[in-house]
Amino acid sequence: MSVVLVGADVDALSGLLVLRERQKLDVFAPRPILDLLAANQIFDVLDPALVRRIEVVPLEPMPCGGGLTLTLLPMPGKIPLYREDRSAAQPEPGPTFSALLQADGRSMIVAPACAEITDEVRARLRADVVFFDGTLFTDDEMIAAGMGEKTGRRMGHVPISGPGGTLERLRDLPGRRIFLHINNTNPILLAGSPERSAVEAAGFEVAYDGMEVRL
Amino acid sequence: MSVVLVGADVDALSGLLVLRERQKLDVFAPRPILDLLAANQIFDVLDPALVRRIEVVPLEPMPCGGGLTLTLLPMPGKIPLYREDRSAAQPEPGPTFSALLQADGRSMIVAPACAEITDEVRARLRADVVFFDGTLFTDDEMIAAGMGEKTGRRMGHVPISGPGGTLERLRDLPGRRIFLHINNTNPILLAGSPERSAVEAAGFEVAYDGMEVRL
Repeated sequence: MSVVLVGADVDALSGLLVLRERQKLDVFAPRPILDLLAANQIFDVLDPALVRRIEVVPLEPMPCGGGLTLTLLPMPGKIPLYREDRSAAQPEPGPTFSALLQADGRSMIVAPACAEITDEVRARLRADVVFFDGTLFTDDEMIAAGMGEKTGRRMGHVPISGPGGTLERLRDLPGRRIFLHINNTNPILLAGSPERSAVEAAGFEVAYDGMEVRL
Repeated sequence: MSVVLVGADVDALSGLLVLRERQKLDVFAPRPILDLLAANQIFDVLDPALVRRIEVVPLEPMPCGGGLTLTLLPMPGKIPLYREDRSAAQPEPGPTFSALLQADGRSMIVAPACAEITDEVRARLRADVVFFDGTLFTDDEMIAAGMGEKTGRRMGHVPISGPGGTLERLRDLPGRRIFLHINNTNPILLAGSPERSAVEAAGFEVAYDGMEVRL
């Protein structure tokens, strides 16, 4: 089994702690994320005799098991919350990637976090299927819901709607586009909501538990 | 809400990482466990503005919220797996406690890990209800099942059966005795098994998901 780490936030790393039952495992990650694993001794619960930590150099394709080729694509993003200055108005840039997986001429990108869809990001998101950051529908959604004090962009997540949002910037992307990493404040989770209709009308899908995608 | 940390192994600490959604929380722990939290930066995901880390001095009663008084009782145990020398034949002693909770003249002890039931341990386990380490039924159960290379005692868990085991050493304990922290190799999980009958005949109960205990 292989695990690819594309970010270092708790939701990306903590799953490793439940994979500790003496399973043989390869963990692929770029250097800054491997350094964070090394700096947090609790991850040594993964037995080095069974779990290899393998460095991936961004933008350099490498085999990652199961006949797949992995390429890490750098994305605009921030350092993990647990390393942040919580009072900072602007987030400090930090290790954020998407994973391009290729086999038999087919391709898939998994991009659970992206702070801004730059022209470079747009150019990189070319695959038969793109799973993309669907954290928030509107940038101030957490604030409006009384669930937090940060905008989506402050949290390192471009919103789906609004100027510079995903609907605007990725509407014409070829291939299937599927939102994942969806926060529980995001109304696209509600079947029949205007927001759900808006993303579907723009050709986006909404991931769900148990979803299967065939390439 | 309060959390009491009685050990520093991953199963004791990793739950903190899912309590990160800006909940107000008090974490009670002895100094060595607070030090381990501090040494693993990933736990800083708990916002210091909302989550207090409160030192508990073992054997000194202190209020812990909800009208409860908490006393940490030292137990024989080992350092967490992620700090171990994996090749060591004997485990290094480390921070292992049980939690005595008292209110309105009633008492409960939660002791998910105990490497040996010494006379001192026996004397400390006095409460209306004692939840006790039920990891393994036999000391070599993991080895016999091909699930690991360690005995229960090497893992810091006294077995239920055999010489010096829990049935022998805690059979005459007053109050309810309920096994918890039960490994999936332990046959007491199977209703109707001889091992289940043996613990029930000795007056022990077996905890289950959703169990409610009224004092």
